[in-house]
Amino acid sequence: MSLDALSLRPIGVVRTPFHEKFGIPRQGGVVDEVRAVVELRPPYDREEAWRGIEGFSHLWLITWFHAGKGERGLTVRPPRLGGNVRLGVFATRAPYRPNPLGLSLVRLEAVEQTGCGVRLVVRGADLLDGTPLLDVKPYLPYADALPEAAGGFAPDAPEARLEVVWSDTARQQCAQWAKVHPDLPALVEALLARDPRPAYQQEAPGRIYGIRLYDLDVRWSVADGEVLIIEIVSQAGAPPTAP
Amino acid sequence: MSLDALSLRPIGVVRTPFHEKFGIPRQGGVVDEVRAVVELRPPYDREEAWRGIEGFSHLWLITWFHAGKGERGLTVRPPRLGGNVRLGVFATRAPYRPNPLGLSLVRLEAVEQTGCGVRLVVRGADLLDGTPLLDVKPYLPYADALPEAAGGFAPDAPEARLEVVWSDTARQQCAQWAKVHPDLPALVEALLARDPRPAYQQEAPGRIYGIRLYDLDVRWSVADGEVLIIEIVSQAGAPPTAP
Repeated sequence: MSLDALSLRPIGVVRTPFHEKFGIPRQGGVVDEVRAVVELRPPYDREEAWRGIEGFSHLWLITWFHAGKGERGLTVRPPRLGGNVRLGVFATRAPYRPNPLGLSLVRLEAVEQTGCGVRLVVRGADLLDGTPLLDVKPYLPYADALPEAAGGFAPDAPEARLEVVWSDTARQQCAQWAKVHPDLPALVEALLARDPRPAYQQEAPGRIYGIRLYDLDVRWSVADGEVLIIEIVSQAGAPPTAP
Repeated sequence: MSLDALSLRPIGVVRTPFHEKFGIPRQGGVVDEVRAVVELRPPYDREEAWRGIEGFSHLWLITWFHAGKGERGLTVRPPRLGGNVRLGVFATRAPYRPNPLGLSLVRLEAVEQTGCGVRLVVRGADLLDGTPLLDVKPYLPYADALPEAAGGFAPDAPEARLEVVWSDTARQQCAQWAKVHPDLPALVEALLARDPRPAYQQEAPGRIYGIRLYDLDVRWSVADGEVLIIEIVSQAGAPPTAP
């Protein structure tokens, strides 16, 4: 086996609302409310490189898990299994992998031709902001869609099982921030309804959690099957100002 | 954008019947008769790296298109469109890509524990023999199966539309070679029924084509909607010998 090291160069980066791992959906396509922008570097931002892409509703993004600084062992503990069962890394989609390649299925919302070249707007990304992009391939339903496949330890989508309740404060803050980030209210509800807490923390009612979205810190807690959104403040701590 | 070159190291290679590009199915999973073996390099051949994989019926192989020495432009001419329509490279699954990453969906047939470590037997590979393997991920039907997705210029699987007829010579030869390669008869029929000729050559009846499978050369021609298998000879030209 001649298996020398291979070299890749990113074709662009993916811009997402996620500035830390906590709260990111665990697969692409699961939370359509996540809007992301694929920014391309020259020459891949030319129209001709994307000719025909509009005919496809969904795309594969192959990315580089750039935030992984942790252990890269042969086994991982999937959060889905409560964090206390070890599986082989290749039996999971964990980001800590021998070659840290990500595979994300997203919905193509728009191909935008800007003054700076083409960019793609996609839905359902499960990626940190700034993730390097290595390749984009069209989703081919005749080859890629196998609804009857056996899905091992993750046969079904995690259920959206929590009701989301807004405090008056959070609702007013969100309305202000939504002038900058129109997707914010739907995004917050979709993410929190799916309960991003690791399984082993789901017995800690009353604890206050934070998710960073864009430049905001969304603070929330869980009790009696409900998520209460407490407040949404900027990273700098500044409250939203009325226009 | 900080987009430095990234380095990958193959975790193994994929062994397939295909020694040249002509005749390889154009997507993974389309021709289940193709049997391939995933050979892993240490330490990825340890059982623990694959613990839990048996629960999944299908796997993604992320590979390196190692045979691509041709042009890597921004557009390609998909064989499916007859080779005379240019599309953006990212709107296709063409192997000539800025980063030559392959994405193949295969069916997991067996996880074999040999004296030399774990290897995987898979079905439906669309890869050249010896293709470097970068990653394996389980297929998650809840996230990956979108049968209603829009498939652009390739909405449906290419039809198996040719009848396959064996010459007496080819049938006898195949029976002999099948002692070494038990899959050979079904593999030959499945590949040729799908008509591997490029669309622009489908008006050349009587022409003799060859497909290399394993160490064999399968010679065939097409007329009146039928594939005639003429002979199956070894690369060295030796006829099969009766045992």
